Amino acid sequence: MVCILPDLAAPMTQADLKMEMDRIGRGARAASRELARAGQAAADLTLSLLADALAARAPEVIEANRADLEAAREAGLGAHVVDRLMIDEQRLGAVADGVRAVARLQSPVGEEIESRLLPSGVRLSRRRVPLGVIGVIYESRPNVTVDISALCLRSGNAAILRGGRESIHTNGALAELIRGCLAEAGLPPDAVQLIGTTDRAAVAEMLGMRDHIDLLIPRGGAELVMRVAREAQMPAITGGIGVCHTYVDEAADLAMAESITFNAKVQRPSVCNAMDTVLVHSSVAGAFLPRMAAMMGEAGVELRCDARALSIIGENGSGQVVRAGEHDYGQEFLALVASVRVVDSLDEAVSHIERYGSGHSEAIVTGSYDAATRFVDEVDASAVFVNASTRLNDGGVFGLGAEVAISTNKMHARGPMGLAELTSYKWVALGAGQIREG
Amino acid sequence: MVCILPDLAAPMTQADLKMEMDRIGRGARAASRELARAGQAAADLTLSLLADALAARAPEVIEANRADLEAAREAGLGAHVVDRLMIDEQRLGAVADGVRAVARLQSPVGEEIESRLLPSGVRLSRRRVPLGVIGVIYESRPNVTVDISALCLRSGNAAILRGGRESIHTNGALAELIRGCLAEAGLPPDAVQLIGTTDRAAVAEMLGMRDHIDLLIPRGGAELVMRVAREAQMPAITGGIGVCHTYVDEAADLAMAESITFNAKVQRPSVCNAMDTVLVHSSVAGAFLPRMAAMMGEAGVELRCDARALSIIGENGSGQVVRAGEHDYGQEFLALVASVRVVDSLDEAVSHIERYGSGHSEAIVTGSYDAATRFVDEVDASAVFVNASTRLNDGGVFGLGAEVAISTNKMHARGPMGLAELTSYKWVALGAGQIREG
Repeated sequence: MVCILPDLAAPMTQADLKMEMDRIGRGARAASRELARAGQAAADLTLSLLADALAARAPEVIEANRADLEAAREAGLGAHVVDRLMIDEQRLGAVADGVRAVARLQSPVGEEIESRLLPSGVRLSRRRVPLGVIGVIYESRPNVTVDISALCLRSGNAAILRGGRESIHTNGALAELIRGCLAEAGLPPDAVQLIGTTDRAAVAEMLGMRDHIDLLIPRGGAELVMRVAREAQMPAITGGIGVCHTYVDEAADLAMAESITFNAKVQRPSVCNAMDTVLVHSSVAGAFLPRMAAMMGEAGVELRCDARALSIIGENGSGQVVRAGEHDYGQEFLALVASVRVVDSLDEAVSHIERYGSGHSEAIVTGSYDAATRFVDEVDASAVFVNASTRLNDGGVFGLGAEVAISTNKMHARGPMGLAELTSYKWVALGAGQIREG
Repeated sequence: MVCILPDLAAPMTQADLKMEMDRIGRGARAASRELARAGQAAADLTLSLLADALAARAPEVIEANRADLEAAREAGLGAHVVDRLMIDEQRLGAVADGVRAVARLQSPVGEEIESRLLPSGVRLSRRRVPLGVIGVIYESRPNVTVDISALCLRSGNAAILRGGRESIHTNGALAELIRGCLAEAGLPPDAVQLIGTTDRAAVAEMLGMRDHIDLLIPRGGAELVMRVAREAQMPAITGGIGVCHTYVDEAADLAMAESITFNAKVQRPSVCNAMDTVLVHSSVAGAFLPRMAAMMGEAGVELRCDARALSIIGENGSGQVVRAGEHDYGQEFLALVASVRVVDSLDEAVSHIERYGSGHSEAIVTGSYDAATRFVDEVDASAVFVNASTRLNDGGVFGLGAEVAISTNKMHARGPMGLAELTSYKWVALGAGQIREG
């Protein structure tokens, strides 16, 4: 089917929407079966055509983008939101580079995870297969439309995309581009479908499509992620919410602790693996905190301190060092703000993390073998770091080639999800007449 | 906390139930953390104590079982249900042997799935960790109480168990035995908790405990599995419903096809990997079907045939060969009944399986390399068999040592689930001060 053309003025009736979503779902399921059969050569071709098309047909996308930018300005959205929406030739070039990078990755599909000969003579293996249909709900940035489509195609999956209302025209143009490339490569265009209405009821419909969507990935703020976790009828990735700690142990190299806490907070504060809270052992707090506070202060970081930390650093007239409230622990700041707490032991640090952490990225700075080992063993998170920055929790850094999401789920995939995490497997048993005896 | 003592006469108020379930959930979460810290030696000891206790304290369990048996007879339950409920010394001995077998399995916890050195010098690995808390909802057989507890403890998980109302006294006695062994081994008894009320509202509560249960496993009939799939707020295994096909290809060895279809249907008809439908290529239907019908007939199997199969086999006055209705395809018989259909091609067989199968166990009998390859590639199921019986889809047969369930999910685990499938992993990054640069 063709993308639903958005008619922002006239939302669909509930019945029409249901029918349309069902049509999208069935189309995706059928396309996923064709993708699984077509093999990877056609997906390769699609990605290569797409990278070229993003350059050759840039004017169409940029024109569609203009409509979104105008609407955003009319709606009075802030300059940074408008900037995130904006697409120009340079940004399209970066998106095309991303597509080429994904095209170069080895597809996980068909890989045999293990293979052995059973005593009966049956040759048994587990073979990677695509999950089927991936649903993605995302917010403003239109590049996600292309990124996620490329990752889904590379892993043999069909995609149903629901982008933000602010970028609906841009997303529509990008989706049409992708669908054209699919058709040119001999694949079903319905392998990538964009839900082309901004009607909020479409999200509720999507959350219920358990027969048509095998995995749902929310990419957006905490509210979206929590709603998906609560309401989705199919497996969904919960992630993207990182309340991340760095514990500076009594045996820490303080220069290293300074560098790591600074990097974890300042290098890119708006992302989920940025540090939110520094925990410092009381025996080094006096030496460490003033140094850290000076460095953070220069970078414009606001520190929200418990009473003990405050008594060491000293309140700051400029409002950059303030007293922490209970709500400052367990909060994802996504900004140049960090909370600070002095603890008397590793146990206290681990308990704090257990209570306030979101299971995303947790770090210890220590020179003690025992402290490092205990922290790694006892802290339950998608990634645990010893003497390294939480910012390293990333599919690219971890060598996965690409990243779909960072999962804080414990089922299926935890931490950075690459192409392999978009696959399932089937058991293949090759026999010569074997039957079950007992 | 102690097991809730069942008071069948006075169901709890909704508020009391909620509070009690919350207490169970929090207890399980706390216990799961202690289990993770305690390591495997204490779990070893628990299992060894439990195997001994099942013999030494058999009279207590048998006495509790007597109450269930009496209630079952009073309720007029059938003889086979009463037999399934019954526990005697011999059956307890078999349960104890099962516990010893699980104790001998290597625990997957702590295993490093992969480990490599990143270019930055960070040593990165993925390490298996327990999922946390496993919830299990199961029906009559009380041995499940012990089996699943042993598997959960061996994989470092706490368990919340909800057994069938018919076996509540037996389950209660077994759970007390397990909890005693946990305490004796220095582990928190709340690592295994039985929901000791038969109030149906407890299941609804359990389905909503997303903060306290990491994975829910329904072991029971289709109705239970479907309810869990629809209503569970946490990840759940969907499985146990097997609509399984065997396709006898035109290039099949017919003696092998006979042996395989017979085994798949007759060896244990009441289980999920038993065959439900035989698909036969038209070019061998004339030679194969009469032979198969004779063999199946002798074993008392009812064959429900499409018109073409019927015209070959011939209707049977005894009612053992009858005309199939549409509902006979896509049905899990769990009995000595099979439906039969003649197809004209491999494509038609694959399409039939795609339409009617449940993604559980599917087999082809063929001497053709091409047909075998295509069947394996194109059929989407937890296990695909070439020249072997669907009955082989089993954790024990596949060498997993033990089996918690057979999953038809595509997420997390597909097919037989052993101990490793009850684990998650965490990324462990060991550095020397590495930070994120770009």
